[in-house]
Amino acid sequence: MTNAMKGAELARVLFSPESIVLVGTSNDLMKTAARPLQFIRRAGFAGRVFNVNPSRSEVQGEKSYSSISELPIVPDHAFILTSTEHAIEAVRECGKLGIPVATILASGFSESGEAGKAREELLREIAYANHIRLLGPSSIGLVNLWNNLTLTANAAFGEAGLPRGGIFCASHSGSLIGALTSRGRARGIGFHSLVSVGSETDLSIGEICEATLDDPTIDGYMLFLETTRNADSLRRFALAAAERGKPVVAYKLGRSEAAAELAVSHTGALAGEDDVADAFLRGCGIVRVDTFEGLLEALPLLKLMSTTVIQHRKPRVGVVTTTGGGAAMAVDQLGIRGVDVAPPSEETRRLLAHAGVEGGHGRILDLTLAGTRYEVMKGALDILLKAPEFDLILAVVGSSARNQPQLAVKPVIASMGVGQPLACFIVPDAPEALALLSEAGVPCFRTPESCGDVIAAAMKKQTPNWAMPGNISVGDSEQVMLNEAAAYGLFARYGIPHADFVVIDVSSPLPALPFAYPVVAKVLSTSISHKSDVGGVILDLKNNEELRSAIAAIRRNVESKVPGVEVGHVLVQRMENPVGEALIGIKRDNEIGPVIMVAAGGIYTEIYKDRSLRIAPVSLEVAREMIDEIRGFQTLKGYRNQPKGDLEALAQAVVAVSQLAISKDNPVLEAEINPMLVLTDGRGVIAVDALVTILGSS
Amino acid sequence: MTNAMKGAELARVLFSPESIVLVGTSNDLMKTAARPLQFIRRAGFAGRVFNVNPSRSEVQGEKSYSSISELPIVPDHAFILTSTEHAIEAVRECGKLGIPVATILASGFSESGEAGKAREELLREIAYANHIRLLGPSSIGLVNLWNNLTLTANAAFGEAGLPRGGIFCASHSGSLIGALTSRGRARGIGFHSLVSVGSETDLSIGEICEATLDDPTIDGYMLFLETTRNADSLRRFALAAAERGKPVVAYKLGRSEAAAELAVSHTGALAGEDDVADAFLRGCGIVRVDTFEGLLEALPLLKLMSTTVIQHRKPRVGVVTTTGGGAAMAVDQLGIRGVDVAPPSEETRRLLAHAGVEGGHGRILDLTLAGTRYEVMKGALDILLKAPEFDLILAVVGSSARNQPQLAVKPVIASMGVGQPLACFIVPDAPEALALLSEAGVPCFRTPESCGDVIAAAMKKQTPNWAMPGNISVGDSEQVMLNEAAAYGLFARYGIPHADFVVIDVSSPLPALPFAYPVVAKVLSTSISHKSDVGGVILDLKNNEELRSAIAAIRRNVESKVPGVEVGHVLVQRMENPVGEALIGIKRDNEIGPVIMVAAGGIYTEIYKDRSLRIAPVSLEVAREMIDEIRGFQTLKGYRNQPKGDLEALAQAVVAVSQLAISKDNPVLEAEINPMLVLTDGRGVIAVDALVTILGSS
Repeated sequence: MTNAMKGAELARVLFSPESIVLVGTSNDLMKTAARPLQFIRRAGFAGRVFNVNPSRSEVQGEKSYSSISELPIVPDHAFILTSTEHAIEAVRECGKLGIPVATILASGFSESGEAGKAREELLREIAYANHIRLLGPSSIGLVNLWNNLTLTANAAFGEAGLPRGGIFCASHSGSLIGALTSRGRARGIGFHSLVSVGSETDLSIGEICEATLDDPTIDGYMLFLETTRNADSLRRFALAAAERGKPVVAYKLGRSEAAAELAVSHTGALAGEDDVADAFLRGCGIVRVDTFEGLLEALPLLKLMSTTVIQHRKPRVGVVTTTGGGAAMAVDQLGIRGVDVAPPSEETRRLLAHAGVEGGHGRILDLTLAGTRYEVMKGALDILLKAPEFDLILAVVGSSARNQPQLAVKPVIASMGVGQPLACFIVPDAPEALALLSEAGVPCFRTPESCGDVIAAAMKKQTPNWAMPGNISVGDSEQVMLNEAAAYGLFARYGIPHADFVVIDVSSPLPALPFAYPVVAKVLSTSISHKSDVGGVILDLKNNEELRSAIAAIRRNVESKVPGVEVGHVLVQRMENPVGEALIGIKRDNEIGPVIMVAAGGIYTEIYKDRSLRIAPVSLEVAREMIDEIRGFQTLKGYRNQPKGDLEALAQAVVAVSQLAISKDNPVLEAEINPMLVLTDGRGVIAVDALVTILGSS
Repeated sequence: MTNAMKGAELARVLFSPESIVLVGTSNDLMKTAARPLQFIRRAGFAGRVFNVNPSRSEVQGEKSYSSISELPIVPDHAFILTSTEHAIEAVRECGKLGIPVATILASGFSESGEAGKAREELLREIAYANHIRLLGPSSIGLVNLWNNLTLTANAAFGEAGLPRGGIFCASHSGSLIGALTSRGRARGIGFHSLVSVGSETDLSIGEICEATLDDPTIDGYMLFLETTRNADSLRRFALAAAERGKPVVAYKLGRSEAAAELAVSHTGALAGEDDVADAFLRGCGIVRVDTFEGLLEALPLLKLMSTTVIQHRKPRVGVVTTTGGGAAMAVDQLGIRGVDVAPPSEETRRLLAHAGVEGGHGRILDLTLAGTRYEVMKGALDILLKAPEFDLILAVVGSSARNQPQLAVKPVIASMGVGQPLACFIVPDAPEALALLSEAGVPCFRTPESCGDVIAAAMKKQTPNWAMPGNISVGDSEQVMLNEAAAYGLFARYGIPHADFVVIDVSSPLPALPFAYPVVAKVLSTSISHKSDVGGVILDLKNNEELRSAIAAIRRNVESKVPGVEVGHVLVQRMENPVGEALIGIKRDNEIGPVIMVAAGGIYTEIYKDRSLRIAPVSLEVAREMIDEIRGFQTLKGYRNQPKGDLEALAQAVVAVSQLAISKDNPVLEAEINPMLVLTDGRGVIAVDALVTILGSS
């Protein structure tokens, strides 16, 4: 938006305005539009507050102006509380007056059918023309706890006395913020500011967060996402946050199809596939948690681990406990999420024994009742936190956390910073112990599920994919599908091998083949994407005679099944003898940009959802990690004494395809090698079918 | 145990003794053995309490007896607080005196290596010989809140003022009970009694629970399980509970391999495969939850649904809310667990509109702020609870539950019993609202995860498998592997078809085959279980000549690869043309008894764990449900226009195999049809390989 406010100055007028105007304050205390003034006065905001209400000269005992234009100064921020129909006009007036930002409470825009979409478009144009930034519509407002600004119509959000802290919270859902503040309060978790972004007609969640990045009092970001719309600004924010070492945790709706659909109807956004969103958030270095409680609990651990990235191996957690059963629950939750709880090494056991710490010989160090004594737990932690076999130590504390909260968490708090990251799961109901730990910055968990969720998510965090290109505008450019031979040619430029082939003109005599039989013959055409379905592929041809009659059969099949198509050429390709198959594909998501996929070949890709996605491009290390995630590739790792496949060559091909995905010369919209044959270890991989759609001319 | 106490009388001496003796009460208040007397006195137990301490005449200001034999009366229950070494002798003395039950605190038995196992064996013998029942060892005791009996050494367990209710709680882990009581207390959930069963040397969790079944003040059971040992008594209890309509919920450790291993080292039990345990619990009608919070929250819903069983279709939940974002979280958690949130029908929408309830047109009924008004929420619930398209209604309540708990939950409480079961998810932190709901018996959830978990588990509850045979003692009987032909014969007796075959004596001339070529030839032997691995199978033989040379090749291959085996016969079988494959197997679990498995054929069974288990026998309906659970069978349901497979015939075969599993004539230890070929719909299924191991002579 030209001439419109951005960056730190935007953050100031949003969260630290010196003056605000409430447009449409009601005098009827039962009405929603009466609430913001009440909340602001109750919280004790120190700036100037103006009210506009055309039908009254006084509201709630304060002066009311009859219009925005009458205000004695130009306020920093307008909160528009009017109905949908009056909101657009109010924005225009605010803009004309020079108010830099307006927050709109009303709904009835993009989420309300065609009429709503048109209203939203108008609103956007008016804001743009008048150089005013918008928060909302459908925003229930924002809160900055550090200056008592409660610019909101929501009671929960405007609750008095919320603890202050360093967490900046932004949410697509307004009603969810009350849940976060109240649950945070019960845990002693302090927020810096909270904002309901509504339908992001102008300001997106990414741009708002980005604007606050240089605020030294903000040390972490908590996002509640319904979609990944406005991915570009979200990415920009996340990468900048990663550079500053400020962690970002997100809970995103849409793990199930029903909820993905709901997010659409709820906010008017488009639903993407959830695993694409997953890949995007990982690529941005945003840690996605799966439990709601985990969203609240994650940031302390992410802060501790802000520089830690565990790549290409299973992370290992060490567990010490006073309650075997409680610890086992946490171990279970970590295990089902792919995090190993590792036993102490021989050397560590020796050190523990030397320090007089007894904890059995199992996978966890079970101190039993003895662990409720300070010196026993502290002694164990001092040794475990420095043991090289662990990436993190989890202390699981039992009933003592309830009966003697101070004593029970003392050794844990005292052990912060001794070595590896430390976290704590409290098994009984013990709010006091949790609050003490939170206050001391110790990552702590109330349930085994959120404990497993957060630790696994933190351990799987990626360094951001700095090379992510983002989306390009496809506009009205022509989409061109390459024929199979041209597709091989494009892949070859990126070093991706394909099986030898020749293209044969079906009207000429059969030439001598430059490779040996057996071969496969395939129709060559840019108008047929499923060649086999129309009888366009014949396999295992052993000699000239079989090849000739196959070519004739392909002409007959295709021309009878696809009326209007005349078969001019066939592609004849050498048959290969693989040990396995894979699929490598790239796809351009409308919001997110190019996504690369590796999958097990065949129908099982679809049925078992056995695929791995990342935002392109990927490094060799990430490509290996993707391949490791495919369960079906176990058959290529020496399963049941079968020959091993060349998965390293497959990883190299994945890297190459991911480079093609970000090519600027002929932007690729979609590309797929399926199957990519995997030969025995050391012999490489080889594409035997290829599909490419590019933008522009071929 | 002969002459030993059982049933209601056992429950009485355990949980409602008129007199107890504490053996080994310490006078040193810092010691664990000092605690039970303190807790008992603090709680105000009304019965007689005796203390035995050989070295003192007084402990904690009360009289102490120097030995058990000096007691003036025979108490109902002894709590033995001594060290491991003295516990056995104390049990003997108690038994000799006629005390009917003793609880043992000490550890150091089965979980402590060979010496511990021997000690446990001795303990069991002494108890048996002296007609005394044992709780423990490694039991931290028990509590009955209805008579202030706190027979425990654990502070959390002995906490004063716990709310009383109807829940009987039994746990393998002692330290976990403190977590359940404290978390329950925070939610206003009242327990009847709680017991730590320790290592179940004599009394098992099943027998203890069963003994309490006729207590009218107990209305549900909560189990924390580490293993499924003593499965027979657990099954007996669960079936009896189901008959009485008393729900049983269980949380079982061992979803991950690491935790399964931990349960072994922690309690000395054997770990079974977790999905076998799952099948067992389902078969018993026990509802297994996956979240710890869900364990506490499940019983009210299970009580409401005690007579509801939804079979062979996806359950449908209707959602009404004041917070779209909060409801979407619950929808997501239900969706990933296979429970559909269904939109209101046209008729229901008409009724809602008529009642003036506006809630949009989406999958959930979003009342927004209007839903915080009593008449709006009550009006919506009255209609939804009677709508035939729902199996359950979930009300998701937002910030009003915190700000105005009484008002927010009033319409929900008032709607109980109006129609279908009703449950409530409270999105913000609102302990008061949760307590009000709990008090009124409304199933209510604190997190979206436990909400999804409990509702999905309740909806998938099975009627118990009344025909479960339980385990049989294999003893020293001979295990006999049948040859393939005999295995087909056994299966045929149960109506399971196999491909036509003849057995050919390799030393005789080739006879005329009673079926057409092509055929497969296989070595016939009871000493080779993997025929293909030794070159014992040759496929696709087209005529006599090919068959003759195949038989010769099989003799050569097998005799060279398996020294000592002489090939006397081959099985020649007609080749069939299936559309798919399946695996049907039965296995006898040592604790649980016969388990039946259906799986997708091939290597994917193992890699994708695409299998479904139940306790044998199964009905046709359950067999169909099992087949529905196999993702790989999607290829046989008209996937991508491929021909459909005869899955109904497969279901019938599963039922038949499950009947074979419970045969008493020749008890089957293990049997497998792999592959069972699935022909096109209407043409049936046909076994083409079979393996059976039975007990006794063939």
